[in-house]
Amino acid sequence: MKRCRNGEVWDFESEMPEGDRGVILGLDGGTASTVCICMAAGMPAPSGLLPEPFPVLARAIAGCSNHNSVGETAARETIERVMAQALLKARATRSIVQAVCLAVSGVNHPSDQERIRDWLRGIFPSHVKLFVENDAVAALASGTMGKLHGCVLIAGTGTIASAYTEDGREARAAGAGPVLGDWGSGYGIAAQALTAIVRAHDGRGPQTMLTFNILRELRLSSPDELIGWTYSDTSWARIAELVPVVVSSAEAGDEVANRILRGSVLELAESVMAVVKRLGLCGGDGKGTFPLVMVGGVLQPNKRWDIGKEVVGCVSKVYPGVQPIRPKQVEPAVGAALLAWNCFVREFAGELAY
Amino acid sequence: MKRCRNGEVWDFESEMPEGDRGVILGLDGGTASTVCICMAAGMPAPSGLLPEPFPVLARAIAGCSNHNSVGETAARETIERVMAQALLKARATRSIVQAVCLAVSGVNHPSDQERIRDWLRGIFPSHVKLFVENDAVAALASGTMGKLHGCVLIAGTGTIASAYTEDGREARAAGAGPVLGDWGSGYGIAAQALTAIVRAHDGRGPQTMLTFNILRELRLSSPDELIGWTYSDTSWARIAELVPVVVSSAEAGDEVANRILRGSVLELAESVMAVVKRLGLCGGDGKGTFPLVMVGGVLQPNKRWDIGKEVVGCVSKVYPGVQPIRPKQVEPAVGAALLAWNCFVREFAGELAY
Repeated sequence: MKRCRNGEVWDFESEMPEGDRGVILGLDGGTASTVCICMAAGMPAPSGLLPEPFPVLARAIAGCSNHNSVGETAARETIERVMAQALLKARATRSIVQAVCLAVSGVNHPSDQERIRDWLRGIFPSHVKLFVENDAVAALASGTMGKLHGCVLIAGTGTIASAYTEDGREARAAGAGPVLGDWGSGYGIAAQALTAIVRAHDGRGPQTMLTFNILRELRLSSPDELIGWTYSDTSWARIAELVPVVVSSAEAGDEVANRILRGSVLELAESVMAVVKRLGLCGGDGKGTFPLVMVGGVLQPNKRWDIGKEVVGCVSKVYPGVQPIRPKQVEPAVGAALLAWNCFVREFAGELAY
Repeated sequence: MKRCRNGEVWDFESEMPEGDRGVILGLDGGTASTVCICMAAGMPAPSGLLPEPFPVLARAIAGCSNHNSVGETAARETIERVMAQALLKARATRSIVQAVCLAVSGVNHPSDQERIRDWLRGIFPSHVKLFVENDAVAALASGTMGKLHGCVLIAGTGTIASAYTEDGREARAAGAGPVLGDWGSGYGIAAQALTAIVRAHDGRGPQTMLTFNILRELRLSSPDELIGWTYSDTSWARIAELVPVVVSSAEAGDEVANRILRGSVLELAESVMAVVKRLGLCGGDGKGTFPLVMVGGVLQPNKRWDIGKEVVGCVSKVYPGVQPIRPKQVEPAVGAALLAWNCFVREFAGELAY
């Protein structure tokens, strides 16, 4: 076990009692934050089902771990520290870790997985099972109790649809960011609303309540000031924060806001249908069932104008077997841990059978 | 006359002979470059027409002078240096300057004009007439021989439509940048083309020649690599450079590329019509004539798919009095000088009459 650059991270281990029960680490790493949970490894019930409630021993949180965003060194330091913190809180050490699942945004290629796995190998004892995935995988697993099968749609600041088959095939759609047309994302919805304000002001588009509602939200006195506000900060999340104003304007009957939201529903539904079709998730007759896990602020069901529900309505017209899941209790980091637990148990069962 | 921070800029003046003929400075300042020309002030012909060819004595060029882009200090330094260089090349000094017209992008508000005029006042003798305008004004003047009346449509990396009446009213549309929906701009056209590639690759949109043609242009081997390419550099101009590939794909019959260009024509025509309508440029019956000056790479007439021509066709259906002008010989900096010349002559004539 390497102690790495920030060796003091693991100093706490020397003061920990020798543990006897195994643990699993699940990590969900995004551009906004990184969450690591430590779960008791336990043994599967005779039914093969997971113990409920999930035996989460500790939870730690840190900043961004997307290597595309903050660079490889900073991303690794964040991941290592948050894992150590979760173990410390659980009063556990690396020696009793059975499996680790890192689900990190920015992991898009087998070479990313391999590089991160090699680095993890230097941190944990050699018996530890290591899984490295994109963060969409953790989101899916959080809705399927750790089973890597089905479709996941994420729509927060950005959006991506991913689908997985049980035999390991994978497909993705969207996730290309604002320049490349992720119009169903929170950023996309809000940017269209800002555009509608400029058009109404220019006389190129219909008047809309969005003008009053968004200017009030931003404390600006005129649409002319929107240009300065928009380009004063390049953060995508800052634009996406305006989505609730678009939703409330649509709920109040504004036609422009309604059209933007209907457009985003189509965009999101098309992303889902594209990956379902490519993997044949719905079976030969197009009527097979498949889970659709939906996560992210845009898909939260806390509004009358329920974007997620509309997306499901749209998808079900083509694929009636869609089974929507909006995970409430299970966060993605737990999903990652469940995924590791599932794989670990399967391998363990395989060894017993052998 | 202040010598300003970079006082050595004007050191050359002490070695210049005392001039007897007046000169005018015209400056066109954009985000890409700044051009200053020095023109002999002369006297109007008895006809009131400008002398031809225009008596341009010198031309100097420098970098960006948009204060929003490089900051106020750097913008001022650039403007001062390029004016000094033009005078030096013309073997003239500030004492014989009669009028200065700065037409600079980023000048959007009377307060911008006032601030820059105050600063210019410290550089030039008190008798010099000073005009500070947005760069759209120089573009218009380059097509109208210095007359500030009519509509100008700029479509390069960005796009803006501006209109002016002889009694000093003004209207603008678009010019809000890529986040706020300038889809008719070079950036907008190219971003839509990149999006079409991603959609075709995802299975969310029709196949298109743009995939092959743009990947070849960028020397990329797969659409997956477009995401990395797009976000590796935030320059809008870099994206806009792909417009010729979109145009050639459309000329080769690609339907997706054709749809994008037709959309950009509508966008640009709508911007023009919005400002013409707001100012009533076309008279009470909507049939009055008005000049439409078109500048910028997107509107160049060097292709079979002639975006500028299509825009005019679109506008003329609603406003048959549109008179398109694509300035060939007169560059915007000369337009700025002509504008100053016109105003200067008018004031001079007014003084004589008085």
